[in-house]
Amino acid sequence: MRTRPLKVALLGCGVVGSEVARIMTTHADDLAQRIGAPVELAGVAVRRPSKVRDGIDPALVTTDATALVKRGDIDVVVEVIGGIEPARTLITTAFAHGASVVSANKALLAQDGAALHAAADEHGKDLYYEAAVAGAIPLIRPLRESLAGDKINRVMGIVNGTTNFILDKMDSTGAGYQEALDEATALGYAEADPTADVEAFDAAAKAAILAGIAFHTRVRLDDVYREGMTEVTAADFASAKNMGCTIKLLAICERAADGGSVTARVHPAMIPLTHPLASVRGAYNAVFVESDAAGQLMFYGPGAGGAPTASAVLGDLVAVCRNRLSGATGPGESAYAALPVSPMGDVVTRYHISLDVADKPGVLAQVATVFAEHGVSIDTVRQHGRQDGDGEASLVVVTHRASDASLSGTVEALRKLDTVRGVASIMRVEGE
Amino acid sequence: MRTRPLKVALLGCGVVGSEVARIMTTHADDLAQRIGAPVELAGVAVRRPSKVRDGIDPALVTTDATALVKRGDIDVVVEVIGGIEPARTLITTAFAHGASVVSANKALLAQDGAALHAAADEHGKDLYYEAAVAGAIPLIRPLRESLAGDKINRVMGIVNGTTNFILDKMDSTGAGYQEALDEATALGYAEADPTADVEAFDAAAKAAILAGIAFHTRVRLDDVYREGMTEVTAADFASAKNMGCTIKLLAICERAADGGSVTARVHPAMIPLTHPLASVRGAYNAVFVESDAAGQLMFYGPGAGGAPTASAVLGDLVAVCRNRLSGATGPGESAYAALPVSPMGDVVTRYHISLDVADKPGVLAQVATVFAEHGVSIDTVRQHGRQDGDGEASLVVVTHRASDASLSGTVEALRKLDTVRGVASIMRVEGE
Ligand SMILES: NC(=O)c1ccc[n+]([C@@H]2O[C@H](COP(=O)([O-])OP(=O)(O)OC[C@H]3O[C@@H](n4cnc5c(N)ncnc54)[C@H](OP(=O)(O)O)[C@@H]3O)[C@@H](O)[C@H]2O)c1
Ligand SMILES: NC(=O)c1ccc[n+]([C@@H]2O[C@H](COP(=O)([O-])OP(=O)(O)OC[C@H]3O[C@@H](n4cnc5c(N)ncnc54)[C@H](OP(=O)(O)O)[C@@H]3O)[C@@H](O)[C@H]2O)c1
Repeated sequence: MRTRPLKVALLGCGVVGSEVARIMTTHADDLAQRIGAPVELAGVAVRRPSKVRDGIDPALVTTDATALVKRGDIDVVVEVIGGIEPARTLITTAFAHGASVVSANKALLAQDGAALHAAADEHGKDLYYEAAVAGAIPLIRPLRESLAGDKINRVMGIVNGTTNFILDKMDSTGAGYQEALDEATALGYAEADPTADVEAFDAAAKAAILAGIAFHTRVRLDDVYREGMTEVTAADFASAKNMGCTIKLLAICERAADGGSVTARVHPAMIPLTHPLASVRGAYNAVFVESDAAGQLMFYGPGAGGAPTASAVLGDLVAVCRNRLSGATGPGESAYAALPVSPMGDVVTRYHISLDVADKPGVLAQVATVFAEHGVSIDTVRQHGRQDGDGEASLVVVTHRASDASLSGTVEALRKLDTVRGVASIMRVEGE
Repeated sequence: MRTRPLKVALLGCGVVGSEVARIMTTHADDLAQRIGAPVELAGVAVRRPSKVRDGIDPALVTTDATALVKRGDIDVVVEVIGGIEPARTLITTAFAHGASVVSANKALLAQDGAALHAAADEHGKDLYYEAAVAGAIPLIRPLRESLAGDKINRVMGIVNGTTNFILDKMDSTGAGYQEALDEATALGYAEADPTADVEAFDAAAKAAILAGIAFHTRVRLDDVYREGMTEVTAADFASAKNMGCTIKLLAICERAADGGSVTARVHPAMIPLTHPLASVRGAYNAVFVESDAAGQLMFYGPGAGGAPTASAVLGDLVAVCRNRLSGATGPGESAYAALPVSPMGDVVTRYHISLDVADKPGVLAQVATVFAEHGVSIDTVRQHGRQDGDGEASLVVVTHRASDASLSGTVEALRKLDTVRGVASIMRVEGE
């Protein structure tokens, strides 16, 4: 074993960074054995230098992250600051000064992955980011390496723990969205400003990263259709139950049936209770992968949290350090397939539509005609009058598979019918 | 991209090998892009040369596997013959003649993994075997690489599809073992001689491999406690249901609570219906991993079959080819921890014991005394007289956690009691 240590610069020492530092210290001997050389924490960049940080030598702490990555003797930079800047500039500076990089930064990777990979390649360095998607769950490496000889057709997952916690609460207790969100906030599962989670920005970033790796194609954040889960209601859960389903916020990356294009989207959807993703509880994450040869695989585990995320960061750190010792680099960006990313209108799936309609004869015929005219074939319809006898009824339509564009056209036309008082909800049905 | 192809020798062209050859042909362009050079099938060794093999150029087929691996121009040998010899000698010969090796051979890896790894190291070559454990499921790579910065405490999995199919049948239909086995055989899930599966030799080999990787310790096949599932009865399933459990054949690799030793074992066990492994249906496999930082992870997918296994083989093939191009090797054997492997007697778990006892007062007191004398604390007891009024009753005891040695001592003493007519079944209770 080499005795001269590899030097690691830690950028950020918050929820994730503090756990990275802790494990680097407590597991130092194991890491050295697994890498083939000791690793040494050479510096820790933070915003607030005076904050007391357990187990961190204060002499290592600096607010000058740029100077740290420019030192020139750093082997690996671990970026766990988050956000776009200064993280982006620090990472490219690190490459330019001879370091490889491990990052947990999904927002940055989804937005600028291609440029960062290009910078890594230019300098012959590694860029690893297992922690950026689904926290502790080994996912990037299995998709990129274990399935490298296979053809992935679909990746469908629960990749945001906060929203899964909220939806699980709504499902199990009948609570409404706000009540479940309040509980998630009180328990620390949701941040004070939950926008990134509940509006699915976080999940969309992960979908872009996953689609890129699965399909060997650059998928930009803008290519990902995104719909949050703030409008999911207790009534939706009741409808889902009627169908033997539950509701999950899913990130879905698909290859079109003809193989010539791909789509990526994030939205709430009904899935059958028998689907493995339906039983993913609380803040857990799980990702279902379908490929030509392997068939159906699922990866399950904690999607966030300091220690779990640090586990993924450290797995990358070991790999990057090993590469450094052997003079090799791991697999970089693979975008050779360069498939077109189709818009949401091209996505084909099933739909569950609840309509408020006038309670009189002929309405069903009218509604059915609109579906037929738009080429959307109906699987089942349930019609029931309201208890309050206000002359309104509910109509629940479940369709066969149809394109999102056809469905949108159908809904637009339905809204124009006099007898349709409102479209109460539209929910996609997946995983059947 | 390099234009000179990497040469692959395929040893064996049966269930798995024929799929490897097929995918190498149909996905040739993708493989070339992902590797950075084309791969060429340079020879195929089989036993029966005259057998017609779809899509295989007959000019490549040979019965002289030794000559093929000795050719000197082979980059990677894919060993999918199975069994100990000639596979072992072919693999070591391959290393000596400059090739790296991908194998799916769990029996060989479990028995001779250390020697094979040493041979690979001696010649600076790679030995990869993702397909040897849990077929298509990425497991070896996640354990060895993704979790390389973490401390794995337990690996518990369903790693044999045949026995899971049989147990699932027994559970869902109430069938007995023989009936379920017959159905598995008829459907092609069990081989004509099912011994390796039902007596858990196959699962034991996988447990040895998993324990070795998880604990960075050499675990020999002999170190694995092995108990088949041929004696599981419909009555056991009824008992399990009473406890809110089902029965699975589990491979369990554990680090002792004090961290100073490890155990590996394979046996049928009750697990709660709420445990993620309980819902693994049919011939699927799943492995649950618990580590310090990542927490609980699960990997799920098809554990066997030609195409799924070939997916894993090809993932390894891509990695090994990439290593070859960069002049590096992947992680080899890691056995630095060299922890002692404790015998089964040291394993601590809970037990479900069914006794046939005389239906008279005082029996429970006698039985309870025996448990107490051996330091095995009782959680619950259920006692019920038989319908046929033959003077016998059943006593079902569920214990708290106790060592296997204490439990064995208890059972031995129970058998000596006049009032105990027989020990109907002993089943471990896991996953709580
Ligand atoms: N938390 C999770 O569960 C989780 C899971 C997966 C991925 N991630 C990703 O991991 C990254 C870090 O997340 P986190 O939860 O650990 O964040 P955090 O708790 O907010 O920590 C951020 C750290 O960065 C430091 N920092 C902020 N701006 C800085 C600057 N300009 N220069 C130097 N240091 C600066 C902060 O310093 P102070 O300590 O002085 O404030 C803090 O130590 C993010 O990309 C996030 O998306 C997090
Ligand atoms: N099948 C699965 O689902 C699965 C899953 C995981 C791992 N594995 C492992 O994969 C390996 C192969 O399994 P398999 O199911 O593909 O076996 P298989 O169908 O029995 O095929 C064995 C192949 O090896 C050839 N062969 C046998 N002896 C040979 C010799 N002395 N020299 C050259 N070729 C020889 C056979 O030739 P002929 O074609 O002429 O008979 C046949 O092509 C085993 O290690 C197994 O444990 C299998």
